[in-house]
Amino acid sequence: MKTYRVAIAGATGAVGTEFLSLLASREFPLESLRLLASERSVGRSLVFRGRAYPVDLLEPDAFEGIDIAFFSAGGTRTKEFAPDAVRAGALVVDNSSAYRMDPNVPLVIPEVNPEDIAKHRGIIANPNCSTIILLMALAPIRALAPVRRVVVSTYQAASGAGAQAMQELLDQTNDVLKDRPITPNVFPYPIAFNLFSHNTKIDETGYNEEERKMINETRKILHEPNLRLSATCIRVPVLRAHSESVNIEFEAGQRPSISAIREALAKFPGVEVVDNREENFFPMPIDASGRDEVLVGRIREDLSNEDAIELFLSGDQILKGAALNGIQIAEKWMQMSRTQEGLSTRE
Amino acid sequence: MKTYRVAIAGATGAVGTEFLSLLASREFPLESLRLLASERSVGRSLVFRGRAYPVDLLEPDAFEGIDIAFFSAGGTRTKEFAPDAVRAGALVVDNSSAYRMDPNVPLVIPEVNPEDIAKHRGIIANPNCSTIILLMALAPIRALAPVRRVVVSTYQAASGAGAQAMQELLDQTNDVLKDRPITPNVFPYPIAFNLFSHNTKIDETGYNEEERKMINETRKILHEPNLRLSATCIRVPVLRAHSESVNIEFEAGQRPSISAIREALAKFPGVEVVDNREENFFPMPIDASGRDEVLVGRIREDLSNEDAIELFLSGDQILKGAALNGIQIAEKWMQMSRTQEGLSTRE
Repeated sequence: MKTYRVAIAGATGAVGTEFLSLLASREFPLESLRLLASERSVGRSLVFRGRAYPVDLLEPDAFEGIDIAFFSAGGTRTKEFAPDAVRAGALVVDNSSAYRMDPNVPLVIPEVNPEDIAKHRGIIANPNCSTIILLMALAPIRALAPVRRVVVSTYQAASGAGAQAMQELLDQTNDVLKDRPITPNVFPYPIAFNLFSHNTKIDETGYNEEERKMINETRKILHEPNLRLSATCIRVPVLRAHSESVNIEFEAGQRPSISAIREALAKFPGVEVVDNREENFFPMPIDASGRDEVLVGRIREDLSNEDAIELFLSGDQILKGAALNGIQIAEKWMQMSRTQEGLSTRE
Repeated sequence: MKTYRVAIAGATGAVGTEFLSLLASREFPLESLRLLASERSVGRSLVFRGRAYPVDLLEPDAFEGIDIAFFSAGGTRTKEFAPDAVRAGALVVDNSSAYRMDPNVPLVIPEVNPEDIAKHRGIIANPNCSTIILLMALAPIRALAPVRRVVVSTYQAASGAGAQAMQELLDQTNDVLKDRPITPNVFPYPIAFNLFSHNTKIDETGYNEEERKMINETRKILHEPNLRLSATCIRVPVLRAHSESVNIEFEAGQRPSISAIREALAKFPGVEVVDNREENFFPMPIDASGRDEVLVGRIREDLSNEDAIELFLSGDQILKGAALNGIQIAEKWMQMSRTQEGLSTRE
């Protein structure tokens, strides 16, 4: 079996360490592994399959001899170093927003638009977490009937803002319980027992960057530049799984039956239907945490519009929302490359 | 000034104690005060304006000589004892769902449908918390232009399930932080660092009781029996303010401008517009907690539908969502009675 020389840029972050643990648990065919991070983390080491790997400096010549570089290093450093990785001949799978809307960079969810992988020129972008989790439900539903409009309200976990944000949620909650004063640090507002509008810049239309990402990235992934989607993105005091309340409106008279939608979701790889009305048991972030699957439930006709449905979903922000989707992009690319080679051999 | 003999039924609960504190802070014109609760609480006393009041048994003859009885005693006990209070000549303001959909009982938000107070036959019902908070924003907007459809996703605090539920959120969070096992008690699922679909019975359409309340009560309060509204009600780990993400669609071509909507909201009593795009400062439950006003922000055109807008709001579940609205109903009734008497005198 072909094996690959892999680097992780940003190896010590929340997503970086998840890349590492997925390479182990999914038995990724590794020839070698290189861990890269900023100066701050150099000198540390991380354990992978029982062996300590040193964390080296993320620098221009760190990618020599690398086949696949998983980036989770923030937009700025990605823009700085991803071109070096591409020049060194690596496939870059980037978790930042740096290249997502670049027309030369495919934006891929392997279950949704695997064909876009073949168009890469060295970089494949991993979509934003909320977008991935939404599309895991929207894509199989949209395959049944044309969608006219989507309205989403999110319940986003602290993990989307990184490992320090998760720690802030825990520490701040502890302080509140002990009646100690709190000083928000990673987040601009208290997150303990609170929630707030996603703290990214608001544009002239009143939408924030997170909401714009959801709109623009969904359009790009689905190759539907005029798709009508609105989102309200809210941060909630949950650790690592995002939830979304989703209203999907179909073209007039074309709404599929609820049972057809439930069946399409149940068959879609990476989705688990959790929709038990009798037991009042539906998707919850603590159940989605640590799970590869996006949990989808509350699937019902919209009582306010006969052409629409409502549903609610939860998905692990660090797994399918980030690291898992990145690893799956690489796996799909490897599979497509093998098929390509298989085809070439036969020619 | 006319004064009133007041009873509180269910005086020791989360809403009951808030009734008590509002009677003090709003300088309600009291002649006397009687505190009533179930056997469990009899013998306790509660302090009101520096004086200890005994808690008496909620029983059929407890309402003799009472002018106004505030009920927050749960549906079953309200059905049992409210008729006694009415027979004794009291006006019952009931916070439970027992009489809300009774065609002989007005369902009132004083800022929205004060005129319905005059139709009472002894009982006036206080709407469900999520409904009140939604309508404080929807009513002034609907006064500007005909609304075609409303889609709501809620972020509901623990307080909606009572004082014990708030305590469970605090205790359970403390246990999670200390890595101790947790056993949900008041809520069916863990609430610490989690969220879940509102745990009321799901009907054959897939909507739960909380969502049905929001639909049915909104229609009754607005006297619009066919209003199109859909809701997804979610419980979040927040203590006492509910938030809601609201999409409002107007009849084609009739959407008011965002500035007209913002102005109508700012002028509406009981609403505070918190909508600072530059500072990314919007309604948050910790800011709404303890406040009489419902905070409304993120007011913007819906990018997916030119006839629609999006907004986000937070309101104190125990205050405007329950006790404050009840007290305001009584205050408005008192004011209308005085006007009535004034008119009679002039006749």
